[in-house]
Amino acid sequence: MPRASRYDLLFEPVKIGPKVAPNRFYQVPHASGMTNANPHVRAAFRGMKAEGGWGVVSTGACSVHPSSDDSPFPFASLWDEADIRSHRLTTDAVHAHGALAAVELWHGGAAAVNRTSRYAPLSPSGVPWMATHVGFMSSARPKIMDASDIRELIRWHADAAVRAEEAGFDILYVYAGMGYLPYQFLLSDYNHRTDAYGGSAENRVRLVAELIDAVREATHGRCAVALRISLQELRARPAEGAETEAHEIIGLLKDAPDLFDVKMDYSSTDCAPSRYVQEGSHEPVVDFVKAITDKPVVGVGRFTSPDTMVSMVRRGVLDLIGGARPSIADPFLPKKISEGREDEIRECIGCNICISSWHDGVWVRCTQNPSAGEEWRRGWHPETVAEDSAESAVVIGSGPAGLEAALTLARRGMQVTIAEAGSEFGGRLLWESKLPGLREWFRVVDYRLGRLLQMPNVSLFAESRLTAEDVAEFGADHVVVATGAKWTRNLCGANEIPTAPIEGLRIYTPDDIAAGTEIEGPVAVFDYDNYYMGSAIAEHLAGQGTDVTYITTAGAAQSWGVMTNEQPHVHVAFQRLGIAYRTLEIVEDFDGETLGLSQIFTAERREIPVRSLVIVGQRLGDTALYEALLDAGTPSLHLTGDAHAPGAIAHATYQAHRTSRAVGAAPADLLERRDAPFAPPGLYTEAAE
Amino acid sequence: MPRASRYDLLFEPVKIGPKVAPNRFYQVPHASGMTNANPHVRAAFRGMKAEGGWGVVSTGACSVHPSSDDSPFPFASLWDEADIRSHRLTTDAVHAHGALAAVELWHGGAAAVNRTSRYAPLSPSGVPWMATHVGFMSSARPKIMDASDIRELIRWHADAAVRAEEAGFDILYVYAGMGYLPYQFLLSDYNHRTDAYGGSAENRVRLVAELIDAVREATHGRCAVALRISLQELRARPAEGAETEAHEIIGLLKDAPDLFDVKMDYSSTDCAPSRYVQEGSHEPVVDFVKAITDKPVVGVGRFTSPDTMVSMVRRGVLDLIGGARPSIADPFLPKKISEGREDEIRECIGCNICISSWHDGVWVRCTQNPSAGEEWRRGWHPETVAEDSAESAVVIGSGPAGLEAALTLARRGMQVTIAEAGSEFGGRLLWESKLPGLREWFRVVDYRLGRLLQMPNVSLFAESRLTAEDVAEFGADHVVVATGAKWTRNLCGANEIPTAPIEGLRIYTPDDIAAGTEIEGPVAVFDYDNYYMGSAIAEHLAGQGTDVTYITTAGAAQSWGVMTNEQPHVHVAFQRLGIAYRTLEIVEDFDGETLGLSQIFTAERREIPVRSLVIVGQRLGDTALYEALLDAGTPSLHLTGDAHAPGAIAHATYQAHRTSRAVGAAPADLLERRDAPFAPPGLYTEAAE
Repeated sequence: MPRASRYDLLFEPVKIGPKVAPNRFYQVPHASGMTNANPHVRAAFRGMKAEGGWGVVSTGACSVHPSSDDSPFPFASLWDEADIRSHRLTTDAVHAHGALAAVELWHGGAAAVNRTSRYAPLSPSGVPWMATHVGFMSSARPKIMDASDIRELIRWHADAAVRAEEAGFDILYVYAGMGYLPYQFLLSDYNHRTDAYGGSAENRVRLVAELIDAVREATHGRCAVALRISLQELRARPAEGAETEAHEIIGLLKDAPDLFDVKMDYSSTDCAPSRYVQEGSHEPVVDFVKAITDKPVVGVGRFTSPDTMVSMVRRGVLDLIGGARPSIADPFLPKKISEGREDEIRECIGCNICISSWHDGVWVRCTQNPSAGEEWRRGWHPETVAEDSAESAVVIGSGPAGLEAALTLARRGMQVTIAEAGSEFGGRLLWESKLPGLREWFRVVDYRLGRLLQMPNVSLFAESRLTAEDVAEFGADHVVVATGAKWTRNLCGANEIPTAPIEGLRIYTPDDIAAGTEIEGPVAVFDYDNYYMGSAIAEHLAGQGTDVTYITTAGAAQSWGVMTNEQPHVHVAFQRLGIAYRTLEIVEDFDGETLGLSQIFTAERREIPVRSLVIVGQRLGDTALYEALLDAGTPSLHLTGDAHAPGAIAHATYQAHRTSRAVGAAPADLLERRDAPFAPPGLYTEAAE
Repeated sequence: MPRASRYDLLFEPVKIGPKVAPNRFYQVPHASGMTNANPHVRAAFRGMKAEGGWGVVSTGACSVHPSSDDSPFPFASLWDEADIRSHRLTTDAVHAHGALAAVELWHGGAAAVNRTSRYAPLSPSGVPWMATHVGFMSSARPKIMDASDIRELIRWHADAAVRAEEAGFDILYVYAGMGYLPYQFLLSDYNHRTDAYGGSAENRVRLVAELIDAVREATHGRCAVALRISLQELRARPAEGAETEAHEIIGLLKDAPDLFDVKMDYSSTDCAPSRYVQEGSHEPVVDFVKAITDKPVVGVGRFTSPDTMVSMVRRGVLDLIGGARPSIADPFLPKKISEGREDEIRECIGCNICISSWHDGVWVRCTQNPSAGEEWRRGWHPETVAEDSAESAVVIGSGPAGLEAALTLARRGMQVTIAEAGSEFGGRLLWESKLPGLREWFRVVDYRLGRLLQMPNVSLFAESRLTAEDVAEFGADHVVVATGAKWTRNLCGANEIPTAPIEGLRIYTPDDIAAGTEIEGPVAVFDYDNYYMGSAIAEHLAGQGTDVTYITTAGAAQSWGVMTNEQPHVHVAFQRLGIAYRTLEIVEDFDGETLGLSQIFTAERREIPVRSLVIVGQRLGDTALYEALLDAGTPSLHLTGDAHAPGAIAHATYQAHRTSRAVGAAPADLLERRDAPFAPPGLYTEAAE
């Protein structure tokens, strides 16, 4: 199907200084977690986006000097010759598909505490950045930069720019956002300087302007220079002679860079979870920029709808459609729009498992796109699988794992039958996506079911609960069991390890609520899972008017929500819904009237009156059918998804993809390569054996 | 001075299966954070301990297979040919000094959630391990191992043992401790199996016994096989026919390994902070082992006193004196005892900055030994510095940084003068070491002062507050300013960033308390620093009988104390002392009677009545003298320690060491190498340019 002409606008080239982007799809800098330690993994990951039609493909943060070392968080570097060679793999991969390659030159200042390089962190005025925030905490506080430190910083950027051009990058960023060093100069919160770099807005932008000049001069105008700037805090501040400080600062810089990349200031707003924040949430903060500058502007908003993208351009908000999360979920998003296949887009669900990867300090993971990060290591492509089999397979269960397994097996050419015990396809997401805010998560089902329904080699059967005998009778060559997991009634010890089930009246698990059980209030939700389920159930019950107390082993609600940027939003939702919360406690006992609690470190006893208890703790795979099939000696039997190892939906789609690649394959066909960085010159010259 | 004969015992060789340790000093496996990614860094770090006299030097956890991937936490691996070459650098470095090299073969099971390799975590029965504990959290839950998984696990160990021998290791560990996979089989909490590997103690030890056999057979008895086992939980459980489950299990395994390495189960007890736990704390848990087995036994206890070590052997508790933290603080501890220089031991202070490095996922750091981790990268030796200068230097300030700078400059051969404004040497530690539990931290001063007082080229002056004019008049070739930092009265915003000072009655900082100010109760201690100072002051004031409420921005008391294993102990101390705590709050205002608080996520207002407020938040360097010297054009002027960038004491000693190496040196003389791993065969064969 040819593409609708209304989308043609998205495929116009855009001039960015001395370079021309081939279209308006711009993969803005985002973390991949791969770092220079895994140059082939990274090149394949970034190159895939160029193959999928993104006109510009950027790196994540790329340190200009060892005094910006964010370890253990992943970051790239451009410190030396080995780094140049490392990045060249990426720029070659990006250029191979006609896209431009951008590098986000980066100095973290006080936000990067140099845990490995052990330089003192740098800052305008000694103000630490989120020093107490779990995962960012450090006992190191920053040095106040003197004049020579500022000169050095500019020189480091210039030197890194030279290396960046040598590495093949087309667009070089100056990064004044997200708490990093140039941003710290822009905001008076961090910048108390009394020299030419502090005080007035003119003074506070001086460093950013000088960095832009230095980068441009170092590369003699051959590379485009982009400014990435966070505008949320600045826009909230009044200014003299301008609507806000953001207007004032953009006004001062309007002619400086070749491109503005505009964004928010905090991860929880910049990369907000779909559970609490809608697509396009940046617009009210960044919409003014194009009115001030003639330079092209790129911004993000978790855009997956081409109509929204066109609207952003037509309404003069953005010139280029930035994508980070949507480009991970579907590297082929631009190509699908280009070819009139927008219904095939694998839309980002906004779960932020990707950002959790960065917080975890590891390679990016994606719920929707299990191939993310595996393009080189395991040779996975997000769109195509080698058609290598005409055998038959039955997939039992149609949750995220079952659907992913079926889709991948079908793409391999197999005759696939999906057997679902329930009346609808979608597994746990049928109910979970109805919990407050989780509607978009159903895209996991929508995308897969949409594809499967159009494939001639796929048959789907609902209300088909199979026994081991049924499966044997069916006689498929391969059997994939994706029967999911169930929540247990187990409590946990002070060591946070699940213990034994608690018995008694009005004690429930999420499965009971999913089954429609009425919960009598007041209810305590005891969460030692600490991902979304506990808080979502608290919100769900409170939304029905039930009196809810949320209790967690951790120090805050949904403690793993720190990883997905949900935690601050959860607390706000709790306040809005009148949900009380208690932290650092475990449940000891419940007699139907009084809930016995214990402080997790001291075992101090507390009691509260409630009528019901919901335990959101441990899940165990539902392996009854698998066990029966195993006992029956079923050949080519595979357990996958939550039934194999309970996890987030990302784990289910990943495991199912892996399982379905392995079905009927020889181990030798299952690629698993190990990457290694380029070594600094000389390190192994003599060591060669 | 020759060594006292009572220590001769420590230098007897000990037979360990087919190998012989040259003495009783045994560096047990501990994390270095360096991983196979930094093989030269690691080899130099481990080799230094052999140079310093440790008879056995071990790796940290070394994964046998990609299904045990602890990323982002550091771990070594023995997965392939590149890994063998990587470890060989270490074994060569260890053997060069006549020591034995040990490798801790490791499978993390459910405690390693494979964030990079993306295998489903393995476990005996699907029980997750500390899944909600910050830093260990994951949304992935483990797979239940089937019979083939167990066979595979054994095979992986055997294959890794073969590679380990090829890499040059003498002692190969089986690791059944600290929540890792073989440990999970030992404990019924994790092991609910009904097959031959679960149920009775005989069944639960089966896997460990089979692993030991597999490792021994794979290397045909040429390598020694050690069992590392955690005994805290087991010893707390009754058993039939034995004193405890620990007795029963050691009894079943008594002839299996060539060595027992015995320890505790949780990091906060196994590697307990000196603030709350004394030297030798393992003894009550591990003292029974030698009564059951004839095999040699090694254990730890943060031993730094040779008399204690002798006592451990004489009393039949241990055969080999295990060291982890003390071997980091002083790699030359054995040699110093051997040479009758035990007064020169740089004693571990038990601050656990080393363990924080592991939690941070980076190279090990040490408060006492700034050279730890820098042996290869920067060429630092813990004992010797090149004597390269006869110039003069004045060091202003005698805190940890000033003393470290003076010592290093003096070792370089300089004529060093220390000028201390106060009446005693020691800086912040003079007061801080008098806070509850921090007495041992004064060893930082004791070691340095002890050395300095014996050096003919060092002069120390107390009560010598210098002005810029004094310094100029003094006329030293080099000036090092180590004037420390002061706490500010700044509050912080909901983004945890310091804001403005709060003014008013009865508002204090730690400096006021150090100066002896009486604090009227009830007092609120507002902690947004979240390292030890806030909780230590709360304990100090409560210990004086003052009514104390501790308030933190974070979810638990001393949130950074998660990194140093202090947090659980802090909460217990708070309960003991009757200290109330409030979490997730910031202080908004204080009128001398009512303290205004705000929930950090929702801004919900709360008020509590107190008479005094202590703010433990931001520190800023005391740079007044430095600024004056800078203005006066002082040549070779250096700012270091907290005055340069406030931090933990580890940062102060590190910065000061670095500064004093750089004084008067040309940048070209300051080595800074970058390491890189061996690449898998073939990866760069074609990439050679």
